[in-house]
Amino acid sequence: MKALTYLKPGLIKWQSVAKPKLLKPTDVVGKLLATTICGSDLHIIKGDCPETTEIAEKAENKGRGIILGHEGIIKVEQTGSDVTKFKPGDVCIVSCITSCGKCYYCKNNLQAHCSNSEGTSGWILGHEIDGTQAQYMRVPFADYSLYKAPANLSYDSLLMLSDILPTSYEVGVLNGQVKEGDSVAVVGLGPVGLSALLGAKALKPKEIIAIDMDDARLEVAKKLGATKTINPSKQNAIETVRQLTTTSDREPGVDVAIECVGVPATFEMCEDLIGPGGAVANVGVHGKPVSLKLQDLWIKNVRITTGLVSAYSTEELLHKVIKGDLDPSSLVTHHFKMSEFEKAYDVFKNAAKNNAIKIVLNNDEA
Amino acid sequence: MKALTYLKPGLIKWQSVAKPKLLKPTDVVGKLLATTICGSDLHIIKGDCPETTEIAEKAENKGRGIILGHEGIIKVEQTGSDVTKFKPGDVCIVSCITSCGKCYYCKNNLQAHCSNSEGTSGWILGHEIDGTQAQYMRVPFADYSLYKAPANLSYDSLLMLSDILPTSYEVGVLNGQVKEGDSVAVVGLGPVGLSALLGAKALKPKEIIAIDMDDARLEVAKKLGATKTINPSKQNAIETVRQLTTTSDREPGVDVAIECVGVPATFEMCEDLIGPGGAVANVGVHGKPVSLKLQDLWIKNVRITTGLVSAYSTEELLHKVIKGDLDPSSLVTHHFKMSEFEKAYDVFKNAAKNNAIKIVLNNDEA
Repeated sequence: MKALTYLKPGLIKWQSVAKPKLLKPTDVVGKLLATTICGSDLHIIKGDCPETTEIAEKAENKGRGIILGHEGIIKVEQTGSDVTKFKPGDVCIVSCITSCGKCYYCKNNLQAHCSNSEGTSGWILGHEIDGTQAQYMRVPFADYSLYKAPANLSYDSLLMLSDILPTSYEVGVLNGQVKEGDSVAVVGLGPVGLSALLGAKALKPKEIIAIDMDDARLEVAKKLGATKTINPSKQNAIETVRQLTTTSDREPGVDVAIECVGVPATFEMCEDLIGPGGAVANVGVHGKPVSLKLQDLWIKNVRITTGLVSAYSTEELLHKVIKGDLDPSSLVTHHFKMSEFEKAYDVFKNAAKNNAIKIVLNNDEA
Repeated sequence: MKALTYLKPGLIKWQSVAKPKLLKPTDVVGKLLATTICGSDLHIIKGDCPETTEIAEKAENKGRGIILGHEGIIKVEQTGSDVTKFKPGDVCIVSCITSCGKCYYCKNNLQAHCSNSEGTSGWILGHEIDGTQAQYMRVPFADYSLYKAPANLSYDSLLMLSDILPTSYEVGVLNGQVKEGDSVAVVGLGPVGLSALLGAKALKPKEIIAIDMDDARLEVAKKLGATKTINPSKQNAIETVRQLTTTSDREPGVDVAIECVGVPATFEMCEDLIGPGGAVANVGVHGKPVSLKLQDLWIKNVRITTGLVSAYSTEELLHKVIKGDLDPSSLVTHHFKMSEFEKAYDVFKNAAKNNAIKIVLNNDEA
């Protein structure tokens, strides 16, 4: 079969590799119908995940590397003897989080920290074992890591349930405890920020304030449901938000600020955006410490949350998509065939320039 | 009547002042039966609350200042025409938080931010208006700011329900979401830390690890229910906690770390004490920013909370005290008469040296 492989920092290749086999009784092997590219894949390629580089460069992987990707729709081909929920022919969403379903963390909606996964955590696909950017894949712990796809939903919609939608929903919207009538700020309108906006909107806040330096992204946010947009390179975001949120019975500040960038400046902006009783839900991946202004925040009754997705909300989100409360296919801007994978990566690497949000790749042979 | 007044930074005085009167239909005037001193009173005296100093130094308050204190037990003497819950003769706990019961914040358990209080926030007693360290006091919004005292509880127990118990319980224990079977670290064993320990214990965690530099305080913590004690000046607290909490199915770290000091070093220690899915509940009053290690924490699914007490838990705590799940009188180490107020302050200012936790002052005339 063919797969998109990561060989070393800066080098990926669409090449022939052996088709995967069942290795454990809890495995499923399936044919990928569609997959997509995530910002994390770019991080791996840049060398930001040394654990992945180490695996890709192991002697036994020489010239082959590791298959990237943790999002996909498969048609089940083979099931291990312990798999009870799926049978050959089933079309399934592959969760980005592989979870055993039985350990302490899995039982407490912290599947991201599954202590029984084959790697060191619940995110192993395309990170510590071969992933979804291929014609076929092996899915470990299939009963807890796959979700049956309803026939009437497009692959575009379904694919968003692998990672981006549960990530932004759990780590942004649910951790932030967004509720009807709230004011919500989404800071950073990359794919995850826009997805957070979609997820927040489904819970009917009064106000969704979208904040980004890129006017084109702000336009997209408006189309997806932002009630206000702010470009901090053109206006003072904190002052504007304070004016927008001051009412006769409330102090200024939003109820929830969702951080979707991952740098100190945007996190620290979020600290200033929230009012008493508010929350900063951090979704961004950070590489540095930030300054937490406890001298102001200690008295404000605020919450700050962080998280890697656990994908415990996948069923709930699938239900919302079926009901029409959420249309995640609106995040898909580009389509390619898998044989065009390297070209698709070029487009995604310059996502802002190419007005790309999510890029879907369909199996040439499906 | 006599009262303990704050005149300017460094100067307090037990002196004669006019007896308070009803000013609004929602007021109660009552005779203080007992009161106590809080760390916040010392902060005010040091000049750390400029808003209080400004009021104390106003021309019309010359030589009189402002009466300190926000904890007390009163016997109701007079009730305003709109007071429905209390009548003369009732013995009541005075909450440290004055709340109107009707604004957005009061309806959302954020009474600390009551937008209808006479001052700028829910903490106004002994801060922005005359407080409880007197023979008589006026209680605004009495229906929402007083709690009827059961006859069979001591003043010592009841007094702890004015502030220290709800503060440590709401901001530490409930914000941290302590639950049965958890591992909890309490960092800083001043009065509030010890009270957090008592409150946490009532929820039956498996482990309560008490951390402080003072061995005498660690001994008290042990008596109050700590399962382990750590003196960070003698052993590596983080390493010790990691060893104590590692199990076959859990990564190291406590479920909840309650910060009760208010300096960057202890807050940052708490960040290192928690495991995946854990929480840092900040109770300490901070004057400086702290470094939030988001490069480690973004992936750990953690929560950080802050807060000023809202006293929404007072009834729940009173119930626990009545049931015997909690004995807050164990926090009381010293008793004085109100006429000895200045002496009591001297003892409390050197609390560690004097092995003082909470000091109760009884009305000489009660």
